[in-house]
Amino acid sequence: MTSSASEEIASAAKAAFEASQLIPSQERINALQAIKAELESRKDQILAANRQDLEAAKSEVDAGRMSDSLLKRLDLTKGDKWDSMLQGVSDVAALPDPTGIVSYAKELDDGLELYRVSCPIGVLLVIFEARPEVVVNIASLAIKSGNAAILKGGKESSHTTQVLSAAISAGLARTAIPDTYVQTIQTRAEVSALLQLDQYIDLVIPRGSNALVQNIQNNTRIPVMGHADGICNMFLDDTANVTKAVRVAVDSKTDYPSACNSLENLLVHTSVLSTVWPEVAKALVAAGVQLLCDEPTLKALTTIYPPPQNFSTHLKAITPPFDAYATEHLSLTLSVTVIPSLDAAIKFINAHSSHHTDSIVTENDSAASAFCRGVDSAGTFVNASTRFADGFRYGFGTEVGISTGRIHARGPVGLDGLVSYKYMMRSQGERGHIASEFGTGEGKKAFKHKDIDARSVPF
Amino acid sequence: MTSSASEEIASAAKAAFEASQLIPSQERINALQAIKAELESRKDQILAANRQDLEAAKSEVDAGRMSDSLLKRLDLTKGDKWDSMLQGVSDVAALPDPTGIVSYAKELDDGLELYRVSCPIGVLLVIFEARPEVVVNIASLAIKSGNAAILKGGKESSHTTQVLSAAISAGLARTAIPDTYVQTIQTRAEVSALLQLDQYIDLVIPRGSNALVQNIQNNTRIPVMGHADGICNMFLDDTANVTKAVRVAVDSKTDYPSACNSLENLLVHTSVLSTVWPEVAKALVAAGVQLLCDEPTLKALTTIYPPPQNFSTHLKAITPPFDAYATEHLSLTLSVTVIPSLDAAIKFINAHSSHHTDSIVTENDSAASAFCRGVDSAGTFVNASTRFADGFRYGFGTEVGISTGRIHARGPVGLDGLVSYKYMMRSQGERGHIASEFGTGEGKKAFKHKDIDARSVPF
Repeated sequence: MTSSASEEIASAAKAAFEASQLIPSQERINALQAIKAELESRKDQILAANRQDLEAAKSEVDAGRMSDSLLKRLDLTKGDKWDSMLQGVSDVAALPDPTGIVSYAKELDDGLELYRVSCPIGVLLVIFEARPEVVVNIASLAIKSGNAAILKGGKESSHTTQVLSAAISAGLARTAIPDTYVQTIQTRAEVSALLQLDQYIDLVIPRGSNALVQNIQNNTRIPVMGHADGICNMFLDDTANVTKAVRVAVDSKTDYPSACNSLENLLVHTSVLSTVWPEVAKALVAAGVQLLCDEPTLKALTTIYPPPQNFSTHLKAITPPFDAYATEHLSLTLSVTVIPSLDAAIKFINAHSSHHTDSIVTENDSAASAFCRGVDSAGTFVNASTRFADGFRYGFGTEVGISTGRIHARGPVGLDGLVSYKYMMRSQGERGHIASEFGTGEGKKAFKHKDIDARSVPF
Repeated sequence: MTSSASEEIASAAKAAFEASQLIPSQERINALQAIKAELESRKDQILAANRQDLEAAKSEVDAGRMSDSLLKRLDLTKGDKWDSMLQGVSDVAALPDPTGIVSYAKELDDGLELYRVSCPIGVLLVIFEARPEVVVNIASLAIKSGNAAILKGGKESSHTTQVLSAAISAGLARTAIPDTYVQTIQTRAEVSALLQLDQYIDLVIPRGSNALVQNIQNNTRIPVMGHADGICNMFLDDTANVTKAVRVAVDSKTDYPSACNSLENLLVHTSVLSTVWPEVAKALVAAGVQLLCDEPTLKALTTIYPPPQNFSTHLKAITPPFDAYATEHLSLTLSVTVIPSLDAAIKFINAHSSHHTDSIVTENDSAASAFCRGVDSAGTFVNASTRFADGFRYGFGTEVGISTGRIHARGPVGLDGLVSYKYMMRSQGERGHIASEFGTGEGKKAFKHKDIDARSVPF
């Protein structure tokens, strides 16, 4: 693709965004319903394209160039994936409109009102993984929040995403929203070209590895809301309750090991090495977890469960420089370290965590409070599984992803992570309002800054 | 400076930030009071350093290498600048704490609570213009909002900023806040090195030209909150009231021509070319404004005020490609164009504006409403001067600057533009909370997602 072709895509997206600003938000709901209808009516065609992707992927798996789990993620017919993709469109349509909401309103002077009101960001460039249904999911979120979007899925699902994209455009064409509101691209070269077009694209949302996110950050001046690694930590404090420790550690590690909110590092307070820790270790091993332990945490177990015993096959010593503590295992492997104090635990987590979600198991309220404030992560939990870090579980109704940055949106991002705001000001006086009449000098007016109770802009 | 020296500064800032997270916010107020006392007691030393900068600057002015207005901006003794700098520290100290505020709270299950709470961003790198008092201003804002900061002022004020910085560190040393909480750097090489250290620095805030902001965006993967050009527009609609048009246009252009919220482009509806426009032009010229007009707006004036006449010396024709409409004049020069419709005005502004602040003069409510929604800028005003776009005028009590981006904070940025948020979760059950117990399958629990009425986190 030439860069002028990319510019055409990007400028069409910006034009579609700008044209949509005067269209009532009900029309965005209509567009989602039209898209759902198009998807339903094109089901055979979409599943045929999906079979093409699956067949190509099977050859890759047979040749050892693709994992079986990636192949499974491509399959639109697996379980209730098709139905839940369609249901997702209706669900997003039914969510409250995140735009038009006033978050600050002041009367500055008689007849001079100021409103800060949520509005779409503009044009989003979203880059995501292999699962083809994400195209429909992200398109729905973009349309609902009033943003135009350019989407790039995994190359493994390109046939599927192309027909899904055609269905989305056909749905949009049946409404007042321009059909270039959502566009898909297929190649990395297109992404590279688009990353240079900051005059058209307002936000890049990459979902994937740290390497992907950093590569994009290095190659654009467009703001990036990254969804990268999750190196989540759990600290078993000196007052940790053994039942809670066992349940929360096992759930955090094993509920869905390849998720970004799964546990990677377990920190064990010195004083619970021979009490809570062996019980937690036993439960983790019983759940199939491989433990990578430093010397004290390993010794605490081998004293109690001496080899030779089945248990020990799940234990492995780790040695300096302890890269394991900076590793997102994404599997049933857990790095374990002893920690002498709460303060040391906070420091360890701030140094090793990806600032995603970290949890403490404790019966001590002040330790809980200090942990939640001292740990510099998007989620800081007390006696709860790291797996709760999720937009649906938080009650957002949906999720754009989980931002590992701390600018604009942090942690699980709902629809309100896809809006910005603007300030609208209205003068209703007889003469208009001018700034030079205000100030501290003689004859100058003072600002009133009186709160206005408004949920939406009254004009 | 070697990059390891920069790494020392950046890692000290991050360590200071992390160490400060468990210090009560009252201590941040104490720190501001201590800094104010240090500034007062070091007044002679600070003004002596300022004289050094001024003398060096005078030589530059004499040699024609520096403008007189830049020289004036360096002078800490000018008018009430010294006193208002100190007053500013107290004013910021007295503002409400922007951290610790709960914006979302839900009971997810019996005994499982979730709180989204505002918190500092982390380490800020702030790059700003010549005025030395900005060091104190930005340091106050950073401390008040709980962020560590690395500050780079203009090289013209380096002696002054060094002693101001020493006073700030001395003030901090008298409190529980680490004295490396605010550090200053002097060179562009240091900035370049720091822009690579995204493991320590969380946000870059450049205040200056578009070129400065873009250069920084091109050379870092740290998020950038840019404060760049203001190309503000005003549209005189077909229903524009002449009194309002005259007052608002003159104020927008002449109240402070070098400010970013001053007017640069005036758009005149065809139907008011011979009615409102000549009156507005006359008032602008009387205020000393030079008008760069396209053919229709020029002709409308020369017909009414035919040359030779004093008036015409302030008129100049502009011709394609009309670069004037993309120019931030920052002086008593205004670009003027005719516009056939509201829709064309919105399109023109979206294409030429820097998305800062744009205003319409109209008596038509639906035109006002469409303008405010259709113009994609941080501020969209009705019958009000663009000069109102300002944090103090908006009622924020202070201003970090005016963001020309739309991610995180947009338009005038108050203290709440310097905070992020995190999610704190607490399980108070007997057994801790685990995610695998929730879902839609048999025996699974559903989330309650019940609102909690909380202004702060109760633990």
